Amino acid sequence: MPREITDKRKKRIEQVLARRQKDLTLVFDNIWDPHNVSAVLRSCDAFGVLDVHLYYTTSSWPELGKKSSASAKKWIRRTRHVDAGAMVETLRAGGGQVLRTGFSETARPVMDFDFTLPTAIILSNEHRGTAPEIAELVTDEIFIPMQGMVQSFNVSVAAAIILYEAFKQRHEAGMYDAPTLDRDELEELRHQWCGR
Amino acid sequence: MPREITDKRKKRIEQVLARRQKDLTLVFDNIWDPHNVSAVLRSCDAFGVLDVHLYYTTSSWPELGKKSSASAKKWIRRTRHVDAGAMVETLRAGGGQVLRTGFSETARPVMDFDFTLPTAIILSNEHRGTAPEIAELVTDEIFIPMQGMVQSFNVSVAAAIILYEAFKQRHEAGMYDAPTLDRDELEELRHQWCGR
Repeated sequence: MPREITDKRKKRIEQVLARRQKDLTLVFDNIWDPHNVSAVLRSCDAFGVLDVHLYYTTSSWPELGKKSSASAKKWIRRTRHVDAGAMVETLRAGGGQVLRTGFSETARPVMDFDFTLPTAIILSNEHRGTAPEIAELVTDEIFIPMQGMVQSFNVSVAAAIILYEAFKQRHEAGMYDAPTLDRDELEELRHQWCGR
Repeated sequence: MPREITDKRKKRIEQVLARRQKDLTLVFDNIWDPHNVSAVLRSCDAFGVLDVHLYYTTSSWPELGKKSSASAKKWIRRTRHVDAGAMVETLRAGGGQVLRTGFSETARPVMDFDFTLPTAIILSNEHRGTAPEIAELVTDEIFIPMQGMVQSFNVSVAAAIILYEAFKQRHEAGMYDAPTLDRDELEELRHQWCGR
């Protein structure tokens, strides 16, 4: 049974759920560093991501601390995948675009994408990059234009910038003004969240 | 005497210097965590910040590791300040806007600011917030709109998002297409950087 919660908290949960974007998701492709994972989950929560997908084949999903920085994981639904092909197919179902971070010649800057479309963004392992079986299936690469001497961003910073860009576009399009979840989904999640 | 460097590196240094924005700066107000400081410097480098200002009165400027994540500090000029009033006056000289991160009722979202103006953004200590003597002088607060349950961002994520927004606006305004530094400044910095 859910513990007693204040009306204020209940209202906050309802407001947050009403702004969750069910068609904006991230994929964690073997991201191993717990600080990175916690930070990305925090950005997901901040910009209204409801679901993330976990693809862990060469690294393990890290143990996340009990610190406040890890608390965002309570508010993000996680789905595990073992089959890259099935995962990408699911993400593309209904016409969604699937992108991955990368720097090849055909990569396009983050501002050039339309994030009001249903979108999944694959964030890859800090050292090895995208898993080859995913890279084969997903060719649309996204990058953040860098003007400096250092050539790469930390994955949590890259995720925050991409999600901010997506938030801005969706905010301007009014996509946070009405729930993306239907009544039953909202009710079920409200019930679950009130128990956390 | 500068060590021998390749033509490729020399060219890269020239390109990066030509894109440095001398009127976009950050102030580190007692940010103590070395990971945060390293990450913010990396975002500064990435988005063309040339100068940062250090205001350390209650914390110490942290020792930054030799790791690659700390390498951005080589490309960012740092100026120490001990007098908040003199620092803010310098930052405002010539009509620059000085902003600080904050959540008071008059704070405005990051998208509402015009970052094509000369701008300094004060990032404050992770626990104590803005130093009171700075808060008194700088009342324009900037925040990143958050849609989730968790109420705050890590300072390095906040800095990255603010600098990305500034980059986007300046990029659209063509401000990275011509040097902001004059010929003598460029020459001096080129000489210094080639020796690093």
